[in-house]
Parts: sequence; C-alpha cells; structure tokens
Amino acid sequence: MNKRLVIALGGNALGNNAEQQLELVKETAKTIVDLSEKGYDIIVGHGNGPQVGMINLAMEFSANNGGKTPYMPFPECGAMSQGYIGYHLQQAIQQELHARGINKECATVVTQVVVDENDPGFKKPTKPVGSFYSKEDAERIAAEKGFTFVEDAGRGYRRVVPSPIPQRIVELNVVEKLVQAGVIVITVGGGGIPVVETEKGLKGVAAVIDKDRASSLLALNMHADMLVILTAVDRVCINFNKPDQKELASMTLEECAKYEAEGQFAPGSMLPKVQSCAEFVRKNEHGGEALITSLSRAAEALEGKTGTVIRK
Amino acid sequence: MNKRLVIALGGNALGNNAEQQLELVKETAKTIVDLSEKGYDIIVGHGNGPQVGMINLAMEFSANNGGKTPYMPFPECGAMSQGYIGYHLQQAIQQELHARGINKECATVVTQVVVDENDPGFKKPTKPVGSFYSKEDAERIAAEKGFTFVEDAGRGYRRVVPSPIPQRIVELNVVEKLVQAGVIVITVGGGGIPVVETEKGLKGVAAVIDKDRASSLLALNMHADMLVILTAVDRVCINFNKPDQKELASMTLEECAKYEAEGQFAPGSMLPKVQSCAEFVRKNEHGGEALITSLSRAAEALEGKTGTVIRK
Repeated sequence: MNKRLVIALGGNALGNNAEQQLELVKETAKTIVDLSEKGYDIIVGHGNGPQVGMINLAMEFSANNGGKTPYMPFPECGAMSQGYIGYHLQQAIQQELHARGINKECATVVTQVVVDENDPGFKKPTKPVGSFYSKEDAERIAAEKGFTFVEDAGRGYRRVVPSPIPQRIVELNVVEKLVQAGVIVITVGGGGIPVVETEKGLKGVAAVIDKDRASSLLALNMHADMLVILTAVDRVCINFNKPDQKELASMTLEECAKYEAEGQFAPGSMLPKVQSCAEFVRKNEHGGEALITSLSRAAEALEGKTGTVIRK
Repeated sequence: MNKRLVIALGGNALGNNAEQQLELVKETAKTIVDLSEKGYDIIVGHGNGPQVGMINLAMEFSANNGGKTPYMPFPECGAMSQGYIGYHLQQAIQQELHARGINKECATVVTQVVVDENDPGFKKPTKPVGSFYSKEDAERIAAEKGFTFVEDAGRGYRRVVPSPIPQRIVELNVVEKLVQAGVIVITVGGGGIPVVETEKGLKGVAAVIDKDRASSLLALNMHADMLVILTAVDRVCINFNKPDQKELASMTLEECAKYEAEGQFAPGSMLPKVQSCAEFVRKNEHGGEALITSLSRAAEALEGKTGTVIRK
C-alpha cells in the first residue's frame, strides 16, 4: 500500500478571481503531481476564505440591491466555493497528470463536516464575512435574521460567524473508497460545509471551519502517514521577524506546546497550523508525522531538505 | 451485480431559492432511496437552469454595480451550481438512507463534460443566461467580451450561450469506481461543466449542456440498465393538450422517430428527453431501456404501472 499524504492548501494562495485562480492552480498541480510521483496517495484539503467571502458578498449585494436573486445562506455559499475551487484544482491536476503521461484520476467530492452545536465558538462568533453595513442596517438585519455584527474599525459593521472545531467528515467513506481506487481526491474544501446533527438529519450552519483543523481530522481519519500544511514560508520560525529569528527543521510535541505557551505563533496564522499538526501527531497511532512548508518547496521538504517536521 | 439506473432530475423541480430547494430535495431523496431499495445502483444527473442562471445573475449584478466582487465566467458559475445543488441532494439522500436504516453512502462528484469546439451549437448560441441589458450596454459588452446578445421581446437584450452536444464525461472513471463501491453518485450537474479540449488541456466554455443528453451519455458509458428521465408528467403523450391526447405506455425507436417527425414533442421540453432516451436505447448494446415519468410515480413506473418505456 502507498503511503498517504493529506495536503492542506491555503485559500489565500488561490488568488482573488477566476482568472488568477486558474493560473495559480497550475503551480499547485505541479507540486501535487510531484508528490504523487514519489509514490504517495494524495488527499487534498483547501481553504476558501477569500472565495466564500466573494460569493457571499456577491449574493448578498445582488439580493439587497435589486439584483432580483434570492438570499443565499452561508453554508450554501461554502458549497458553491467547493464546486468553484474544486473544478479548477481537479482540472489543473488532471492536466498535469496527463502531461506527464500518468494514468491517474483526480476529482472533487462535495464534503460536509459536522460541528458541535454546543461548540463554544457559536457563543462567540469571530470570523467576519460579507459586506459592510451602517449601524442602523446592521441592527435591523441582526434583529431580522439573528446575525451577529461587529464594528470593523471605521469601515462599518460586518457580520461575524463562528469558527467551530470540526468533529466528523460526513463523506469520509467516499473519500476512502476513492483513495483506495487510486484517485487523487479533493475534499473538505473551505474546511468542509459546516453542518450540525439534528433529529431530522444534518443541517447547514453559518460558520467557517478552519481548513487546517479539518485537514488534520481528515489525516487522522484517513490514517495518513503525513499531514502536509502548505503556507507562505518554507519553515516555521521562532522569534519571527526579530533579529534572533530561527527556522525550525523539526519540532516535538513538547516543543510545540512550549513555543505556543511563549506566544511564538500568530493566532489565525501559524498557530492553528502548528496546533493542527500537533493534534494529528498526538492522536494518530502509527507514527504519522506532520510537515509545514511552502508550496514551491514541498517536494524538497518531503526529502528533509527544508520544511518543519512535527513529530512525537 | 445490481442493475444500474441513471436518473436525470430537472433543475426546474428544485425551486427558486435555497429554502425551497432544501424542501424539494426531500421528496427527490425519497424516490431515489425507493429505487435504491429495489436493488438498483443509482447514478443521479440533474439540471441547473434556474440555479446557474441565478448564480450568474448575482455575480454579474454585483460585479457591474459596485458590489466589489470580480467578474465570474459562466463555466465557473456552473461549477458553483454543482456544489450548491449537490450539497442539498446528497444531504437529503443521506438522511433518507439513515432514516430507513440503510448503510449506504451518497456523494457529489464535481464533473466536467467535454464538448466539441466545432459543435454547430457554438455558431448559433440559443440559451439565454444572465441579466437584461439596454441595446447600448449589450453592444458594448458584446464588443468587449465577444458575447452574443439577442433581444428578448420587449424586456431588453440578453446574452445567449450555445448548447453543444456532450461528447465525454471527464470524471467518468471516478463515478464508475464509486458506483462499484456501492455509493449513490450525483454527477453531470447541469449537464456537466462544459469544457473543450485544447493543447494545454481542458478549458471551460460558456455553454449549457442539456442535462438529459448528458445523462443519456452517462447511462451509455456506465452501461446502465435503464435511463430514467424524471419530468412533470407521468407519461409521454401524443396529441398533447388536444381532445385526442393519448398517453403512451411504451415507444419503440421507430415510433420515437415517427412521432418526432410529426412534431409531437415540444423542442426544449419533451423533444430532448425523447431524443436522449432514444439515443441511449439505440446505442447501448445490452438491451438497456429508457423511462420517462414523474418523480412521484417513478417507483411505480419501474414496476410498469405508469411511465413511458422506450425500447428497441
């Protein structure tokens, strides 16, 4: 059996419009096929921050300003972003496989991820989405729809949604079957479409699941040999942007905890990546490791030439 | 091995907004699980006319009117509609399976369908999409972007896109693997994301593929035992809406051709359904039949109690 890699791609690395995204996925595809050629089975998770934000903004703007299109709930915007990003990614990966003469399939599975409705995140929504509103409009919409708004320094009021912890990947068995069949699978787009369990089944909720945490859960459930989180830097640093900045080739779980306690990693940036890696390394029972590195150097990083490996 | 059904669902039966769609897919899910319980492997194709139109309109409205979101090409809107519709459909089917205690998976595969760039449809775009424009705006956009516009009786000018014939389902092998693994698969949403083959790989094109034709190709390629096209009526009629209207329990290929020559079937409505069925029945080599009936009576129709069967 091949070794398994779960790769988490940043939504910020996909550009700001369809044209940019189509170009950028070509680079992503090269790296993914490089890793596939090294003999790994590959499962790709990706972010959707800018993309779901854009879709949500457009839907909201059109519905509110006479565009004659209906109000579109946030989880449905997430589902749209999975189609939009998955289409480009799979097309680029298919083309890269074809260009290298590799007979392998790639496809996107629309994926829901269950979150706990009692997650503390729901009590304190923090993730801004959609348009800026005046105080009056924000208060009216909050009363009408039960949304939470926060003031964004001088720019107006903006809706915030929770960022709960992913609990279960609904389409996990489907992904597993495809990986077993040799398919490169794109899944948990944007951290997955967030749903809660109700008596009547799953129900979409307005939330944003961190894609690194969703990919960590995916790696754990898929018994991955490695979780690879791709980001803007080749290696994790301590004392980042200071004179004594130091790149790390590896971290133990103890070091992760120590650096985290020291406040070495920026919340909303490197911190969730390190935490997601540590979570996978701690919980998996067959020696799986995690790697944080850049897209362009991922193949080298797997050979130990760069990147930061997190291990027990 | 189970018998295989390819089911084509109409996009018009999915309502006009997310709330309606969430309700309507529950009925669809019941029928699909009824058929699954009869021992069939199920592959679901669906339309997206109203949905991709809505997404395209909202994106266009926002981009053109200060919504600060980028221009979104038409095939990308189609990919979004696959995520949006697939999410609701798979969630409803999963819930129906769960409620009946059936241990079976359901998921949506983002699916591209290749069309021929020399398809005559590209020379004569006919399918209206997006907003209404003034003559001046339509002419300006046509010059800028190469779009084709037609005047829509008194309501202004509207972009039209081609409706080319589907040639190849790109993710076919992925769908095959999932069906073999027992998964109910949702695919070729909206007839598939239309792409053409270029030297540099696949490229999205602004077009709408008829979902019945795409489902017919899917049924043929998947060696389905039956193509089931669900529509608003229980049976195909001749002399439709006339005093001598007659419901048909079955049609041979010869009868299909004869009735078509008589102009019995409305273009853009029953005609492509009958043609898609006839195409599948004619080309498949193991006695596969086709069925046109309503969603609510599909299970009965499979028992021969209603519906119109098309056979050699």
